[in-house]
Amino acid sequence: MGIDERQDEDVMLAEMAEDGARPDDRIDDERLDEENTLKPEYVRAVRDALDAGENTTVYDLVEPLHPADIADLLELFDKDDRAQLTAAISDLMSSDVVAELNDYVREDMMEALPADAVAQIAEQLETDDAVQLIEDLDAPDQAAILAEMEPEDRAAIESALAYPEETAGRLMSRGFVAVPESMTVGDLIDYLRREGDLAVEFFEVFVVDASHHPVGTCALSWILTTPRQIALTDVMKRDQTLIPVTLDQEEVALMFQKYGLISAAVVDEDGRLVGQMTVDDVVHIVSEEAGEDTLLLSGAGDGDINEPIRDAYSSRVRWLVANLGTALVASSIIWFFGAAIEKLVALAVLMPIVASIGGNAGTQTMAVTVRAIAMNQLTRSNTGRILWRETRVALLNGVTIAVLIGIGTAAIFTPMLGIVIAAAMVVNIIVSGLAGVLVPVAFERLDQDPAVASSVFVTMITDSMGFFAFLGLAVASGLVG
Amino acid sequence: MGIDERQDEDVMLAEMAEDGARPDDRIDDERLDEENTLKPEYVRAVRDALDAGENTTVYDLVEPLHPADIADLLELFDKDDRAQLTAAISDLMSSDVVAELNDYVREDMMEALPADAVAQIAEQLETDDAVQLIEDLDAPDQAAILAEMEPEDRAAIESALAYPEETAGRLMSRGFVAVPESMTVGDLIDYLRREGDLAVEFFEVFVVDASHHPVGTCALSWILTTPRQIALTDVMKRDQTLIPVTLDQEEVALMFQKYGLISAAVVDEDGRLVGQMTVDDVVHIVSEEAGEDTLLLSGAGDGDINEPIRDAYSSRVRWLVANLGTALVASSIIWFFGAAIEKLVALAVLMPIVASIGGNAGTQTMAVTVRAIAMNQLTRSNTGRILWRETRVALLNGVTIAVLIGIGTAAIFTPMLGIVIAAAMVVNIIVSGLAGVLVPVAFERLDQDPAVASSVFVTMITDSMGFFAFLGLAVASGLVG
Repeated sequence: MGIDERQDEDVMLAEMAEDGARPDDRIDDERLDEENTLKPEYVRAVRDALDAGENTTVYDLVEPLHPADIADLLELFDKDDRAQLTAAISDLMSSDVVAELNDYVREDMMEALPADAVAQIAEQLETDDAVQLIEDLDAPDQAAILAEMEPEDRAAIESALAYPEETAGRLMSRGFVAVPESMTVGDLIDYLRREGDLAVEFFEVFVVDASHHPVGTCALSWILTTPRQIALTDVMKRDQTLIPVTLDQEEVALMFQKYGLISAAVVDEDGRLVGQMTVDDVVHIVSEEAGEDTLLLSGAGDGDINEPIRDAYSSRVRWLVANLGTALVASSIIWFFGAAIEKLVALAVLMPIVASIGGNAGTQTMAVTVRAIAMNQLTRSNTGRILWRETRVALLNGVTIAVLIGIGTAAIFTPMLGIVIAAAMVVNIIVSGLAGVLVPVAFERLDQDPAVASSVFVTMITDSMGFFAFLGLAVASGLVG
Repeated sequence: MGIDERQDEDVMLAEMAEDGARPDDRIDDERLDEENTLKPEYVRAVRDALDAGENTTVYDLVEPLHPADIADLLELFDKDDRAQLTAAISDLMSSDVVAELNDYVREDMMEALPADAVAQIAEQLETDDAVQLIEDLDAPDQAAILAEMEPEDRAAIESALAYPEETAGRLMSRGFVAVPESMTVGDLIDYLRREGDLAVEFFEVFVVDASHHPVGTCALSWILTTPRQIALTDVMKRDQTLIPVTLDQEEVALMFQKYGLISAAVVDEDGRLVGQMTVDDVVHIVSEEAGEDTLLLSGAGDGDINEPIRDAYSSRVRWLVANLGTALVASSIIWFFGAAIEKLVALAVLMPIVASIGGNAGTQTMAVTVRAIAMNQLTRSNTGRILWRETRVALLNGVTIAVLIGIGTAAIFTPMLGIVIAAAMVVNIIVSGLAGVLVPVAFERLDQDPAVASSVFVTMITDSMGFFAFLGLAVASGLVG
């Protein structure tokens, strides 16, 4: 955003504030509830006005909203209502709104627009947001949109699209401030005043050598608190965290967290500065990466409520079919013990308890392990210690549950059946605990995402072992036949 | 950090770089692997030196590490080795290392230190980090440490501790830059140069009125790109997002994400500026809040691999006992159909399949719902639409799985049993889908965290309904008896 532009906007805002037409801060906004989401009454008012065809009322209702809240509003509507709403507020559909939209909703809306309209929106966005806008479209659509864009913007987007998805090269901002080592603080300030429009958002200035390799970083607050005559090389921090352009977004997010970064230089394979990543973009990645494990572990795929039904069906049913396979393995074990169950139906009544509690214990351990792997807390250096820790927790859990179920079963059925189920429970909970650590660790060592496939294997192990331990011990103890 | 201090440190760093004693950037550090974690060989070298009592070798090995990596190293060791390592590298145990430590590890280490040593560390930390250091200690320990601190630091910490845990008042930084509306850009720069040490880290300057209410925010990059004579009120953004001092950290994190904030003013109940939150601190909250749902849904409590075993046992066993209760409900349904199972043991073989797949389908829907609630995507305004969406996905999943299991069962057992299990599967997957949405939504409406308690209820519903639908349909169809 350039200086002039900002001042104009600001004058406008100031006038509105004087008129009392716009609240000074959003926290008191009467359209938002205490969780900062749009109130149902407000959404209903918009919907009613839309249904009644009162487009001016709709516009007046939506106009005071922050772009992020307009995006939220669009997401709350279904596809048809959304198209109608978009038409009613087309003036308010700024690039800021588009940038804030959920990926699926945005893709949906872009597919409905002609290429030149999408190109126009893309040109108003920062490169990283523009890339997000078009990266999920079909190749012909992408080409059509790029063809409509200014050569400079097109080149920036094409360069980003040349990097794999979810890497720093895709996500980085190509606008940043890089200055030579010879500058003083005063030179830098003069330079920035002269070249006001050079970057939309920056929190640090990168100092580079003649071949454009970063040699240091200056936080803006240091520059502002330092006398003009001091050389940048005396105020900059030399100990930098540089991000390779091909680094995966998950690793980028972990680096920002680990080193408390506010922005970082992205460098190409020759170590030359090609872009920057800023923490406000990384926040979204952190949220996405940390949240997706819940969804992956449950086999819910992307798990976005805006995902088209056919995609949600396809990712979820695949996982259910895989689990049908593991359930059949467990069933075949029961089949093997069919004769014993025929003689003592109590076995059929009790066997799901052993499997179910084992499954829960395995899920607990697996969740802890997957999270620790994702946060780089569980590495080769402490796997043994964590396995031993989880074994001890499993032993404590196993004994506690075994005593409870053992006494109950002994009281209702027979003491011998109580002993059998208690023993089976201890065995199964310990096996589950071990599986909960070892399965995700094994996937990690094989360079597979432990959150994706661990559940199926852990469930198979806990179910099968639950039925096998209980029914096997029942037969071995001479309880039946 | 003051200007002088920074320059000294920088001169030191520059000298080291010239000596080649310190790498210029961490990405090439030979101690770290491609995931930016400490290599096992390196950790083993430290351990071996420690075991051999070669403390100088240990020190030389650890000295080049970044404080965040020293913290990681400490976390990789168990309690006894950690104490030994801390003794060997005591000079390197800076407040930066302590601030980066895992909560449990830090608490453990602080409990082992005398109060005056902890007080000394706390005084070097920013208030928010110092609060983290002592908030989990017992009240007498806290009092002893506070008594050892300088009155000013003590007052800041006591003021933070007066707010509930996980609120903005606890987490905010009390160092920030607030200036009057009358200043120009030039005045501000002069002021900042004069008062160099006034805040450790700031990315925005808050403009306040005479009664200390924030009226606008200036990004530092705007100040640096604007001529000296321009008034701050002409460059600042008036449309602010203010954070009430009592706001929960989860809502703070969502506000930063939603509005793409880099820092935000924290205000007391009278709207006066009392602190700031910066995005680098919020990144940790985002990660924690997004990651904890995986752990809560599985009943793994805090789920930190550094949590003491007794705490891990206590949180997990509680959940297993609750699940034992739900398993008993499911078992009692089987018991009710005991006579049918005695006549047709195939029912016992197949019934866990229906319950297990239903459980999986319910978990998928529940994970999606819990995530959408956490991200403020699922509100009262679209609950109905999401419920309908999930019902359709469940119907598709149900029919697919029913066809597969129905044909298989018909081939192996009887056609009638195939029809019964197919029908039971459709019923159970649809019920599971509905439960997966309705249970978390109900908890949310009751102001309970949907991630904590939903699993137990959803599992009970899917298990019981699985057994009931299958065994009930088997009896109703006249398949048995």
